[in-house]
Amino acid sequence: MQFSSNSINNVRNTLKYPTPFWVYESVVYEIFPDRFSIGKGKSVQDKASLYINRGGTIKEWNEKPVATGDWRSSQSFYGGDLWGVGEKLDYLKDLGVNCLYLTPIFSSPSNHKYDGADYFKVDSQFGGNRALTFLVSKLKRENMRLVLDGVFNHVSSQHKWFVKAKNGNRDAMSKFTMYESGHRGWWGAQSLPELNLEELEVRNYITQVIHKYLKMGIDGWRLDCGQDLGPVNNAFIASKVKSISTEKYVVSELWTYPEGWNMVDGIMNYHLRELILSYLNGELNEIGSALTSVFNDTPNIYGCWNMLDSHDSERIANVLPDKSLRKLAVVLQFTYPGVPVVYYGSEVGLEGGRDPECRDTMKWNEETWDTELREFYKKIIALRKTETALKIGAFEVLNTDPLVFLRKAPYMLDDIVVAINRSNARRVAAQIKDGRLLDRTRFVDLFTGEKFSLSAGLLKFDIPERGFRLLKPLNDTVRGYDQYKRIF
Amino acid sequence: MQFSSNSINNVRNTLKYPTPFWVYESVVYEIFPDRFSIGKGKSVQDKASLYINRGGTIKEWNEKPVATGDWRSSQSFYGGDLWGVGEKLDYLKDLGVNCLYLTPIFSSPSNHKYDGADYFKVDSQFGGNRALTFLVSKLKRENMRLVLDGVFNHVSSQHKWFVKAKNGNRDAMSKFTMYESGHRGWWGAQSLPELNLEELEVRNYITQVIHKYLKMGIDGWRLDCGQDLGPVNNAFIASKVKSISTEKYVVSELWTYPEGWNMVDGIMNYHLRELILSYLNGELNEIGSALTSVFNDTPNIYGCWNMLDSHDSERIANVLPDKSLRKLAVVLQFTYPGVPVVYYGSEVGLEGGRDPECRDTMKWNEETWDTELREFYKKIIALRKTETALKIGAFEVLNTDPLVFLRKAPYMLDDIVVAINRSNARRVAAQIKDGRLLDRTRFVDLFTGEKFSLSAGLLKFDIPERGFRLLKPLNDTVRGYDQYKRIF
Repeated sequence: MQFSSNSINNVRNTLKYPTPFWVYESVVYEIFPDRFSIGKGKSVQDKASLYINRGGTIKEWNEKPVATGDWRSSQSFYGGDLWGVGEKLDYLKDLGVNCLYLTPIFSSPSNHKYDGADYFKVDSQFGGNRALTFLVSKLKRENMRLVLDGVFNHVSSQHKWFVKAKNGNRDAMSKFTMYESGHRGWWGAQSLPELNLEELEVRNYITQVIHKYLKMGIDGWRLDCGQDLGPVNNAFIASKVKSISTEKYVVSELWTYPEGWNMVDGIMNYHLRELILSYLNGELNEIGSALTSVFNDTPNIYGCWNMLDSHDSERIANVLPDKSLRKLAVVLQFTYPGVPVVYYGSEVGLEGGRDPECRDTMKWNEETWDTELREFYKKIIALRKTETALKIGAFEVLNTDPLVFLRKAPYMLDDIVVAINRSNARRVAAQIKDGRLLDRTRFVDLFTGEKFSLSAGLLKFDIPERGFRLLKPLNDTVRGYDQYKRIF
Repeated sequence: MQFSSNSINNVRNTLKYPTPFWVYESVVYEIFPDRFSIGKGKSVQDKASLYINRGGTIKEWNEKPVATGDWRSSQSFYGGDLWGVGEKLDYLKDLGVNCLYLTPIFSSPSNHKYDGADYFKVDSQFGGNRALTFLVSKLKRENMRLVLDGVFNHVSSQHKWFVKAKNGNRDAMSKFTMYESGHRGWWGAQSLPELNLEELEVRNYITQVIHKYLKMGIDGWRLDCGQDLGPVNNAFIASKVKSISTEKYVVSELWTYPEGWNMVDGIMNYHLRELILSYLNGELNEIGSALTSVFNDTPNIYGCWNMLDSHDSERIANVLPDKSLRKLAVVLQFTYPGVPVVYYGSEVGLEGGRDPECRDTMKWNEETWDTELREFYKKIIALRKTETALKIGAFEVLNTDPLVFLRKAPYMLDDIVVAINRSNARRVAAQIKDGRLLDRTRFVDLFTGEKFSLSAGLLKFDIPERGFRLLKPLNDTVRGYDQYKRIF
């Protein structure tokens, strides 16, 4: 008897669409545009007026963002723009990612632009609508996808509607919740007035914004503050996205246990991040049953986003400074069902604490990179794009400590066994729960090339301290003999 | 494939009724009438003739009951009666219980009266039918419920039918199973001849008894020896109870794994008692999976009775002399799905081993009370009556050691998380499996007032040695901002 998911299900059942195939093939790269790259050979000084005329300050690329404890940290600009993103596609192709997610790009007073003033304009600081057109067409040529960030729960206090509402305009006031003193702001923040999403004009505005950019060629929307929007508005927006094309994607920001939110293609699985980090730092004794619950309870887990960090969290290099443990986190991120999302720079070891430190600039001087880490990322990104099991395989825990799980593919020789050992080196015997995998089949470690044999359904292998394995069955034939010839 | 419950289901499917709502709201108090209170200002000496004329002996209220190993321990009387129960309602209201369960009260030679001689008469030792009428009307005024104990598997060898049967009366003999030497008695006891429940006259008699007291105003029947009655007779009696009103309740005494007995509103969950005690005394390594099985397999678990002790068991104070562990047992009793039943006196720490020790008199001298324990009972009784999750919430295990489980309510802010730690103080990270509970939500400990925050679906808290927590989400608003405003 689960009252909760039933009630959410009811909303969803009338609105759910199939998820577009390309989502399952994706490795996403998240970019905070002000901090990734300045295009057209410019420096922040060349663009200074765009910031200073609007009350901001400019910073040199190598200056660290500093927490000021007030609004000023959102008023420091480094000059990054969409031209710069477009110019770095070679880097991204080389890394292997094939989908970009940009934090908000629309006209707004801040560097993060989560306080939107005009959703019909790309901010001039980011190159305006022309830079977006340039980026979209360049991505299309490279067969890369683009997801934009839609902030529909609240707007900037500089949004024209709110300016009118403050002046007592009744129509404008109806779009917000105005009190005798002040108004309803997100988490009480007066600079972020929350929209009355139940008002028809507000809904029409959101629909127009969503449609404008989808028609321009973007592939989907990430919905900011999914929990504040609530199930009904998530469903409404998803239906409006899908009305343009069922090939378009909607992913909602959610920090809850990911049960029940099935009116969108997927959610940002911050819960998975919390599980992985709590497991690797020792707070969580055992992760297998929690991962199983998430797999069973999450609607369309394959369409969800698996992040280890983002613009809203400490960077993974800070949470897990031990690189071996960090790699285990990345392996979990890439092998647990869902779409991996790499936060720009974490692939070269970029560090940063909570906001604003985690929004440091991307470093383009290769001497500052952790190249060994970057090679590891390239390898696992490539595997994620080629291995069917990692894209759409079922998930089954085979052993809890060390964690061993099976990603079960439509064809058994595409199965992958993943092992994660946060502790000392040891020997493991894992029950491989797939009746299609035959005795004596050898498994190869996709990273090291080592081989281990299946014996009557048990796979025995050793695993190094803080090490991992990705094991895939081989089809060894012997002088024309293929024991799989009649197996499907 | 469960043949047993299927066959039981077949019986039940034609007879099952909805359980009355008041059952879910109840906290039951079990009274053994001879030992609770003597009414009308009398002493046992004042009533001596009622006992001695029938071959019994009388005891002073503060004399401990002693096991004699023979029939004499059931012939020792302390003088308690239904007048006495009625006079103590203020005490019971103050404690917070709202339903009484009396062990048998009908005419019978013993103090326990599980050997009934005449079911149409309340025993004169207990005040006769007048005292029952007085008690029923007093309970009605206080909005309290009353459940009587129906002993229909067997009767006293003094029952008129059996006296006739012994004398060779064929009609009377047909109501029992008479052998050449002796007759069929319960567990071989010749003093407890078993009724032939398949005989129409026996069934009519039971129906008349059941209906008489329901019409008088009692709220339900507890069926003694539910397993001996068997599924068919449980179903028959339940249908006769419900024919008076669907607001009437039937609970059956069962000591089995509680699967399949779904022809009554609920069973006395002695299995749960065994699980709780075995877990807290260390015999059972892990209780989470067992509690999950009971939740899944028990028909109408919400209508079952959760006892830690009764007239048929050692008192909880003897089984768990460590008061911290005993409180953990009480927390499980009150927070696991089902109706808690407090055995008179255990709320003030009354001790007693197996029968007859567990049938010691209630102590009315407050100086003998464990008042701290009584306050704890008052608190958890009050919570059980007000918290929706404890009444009808679903049950889901979140962590096995310490045991953490979720009672999931129709509205998420009514959820309750329960944690039970039988071991050393420690830190817990529990996955809160409810997608409606939003990030940063604070949970308050309903006993201590301490607060802990949900972070991306994980609730981290510390728990003292042999301690417990009942945690409920708070809806913290910030200047008119309510993150739950669009969640259901």
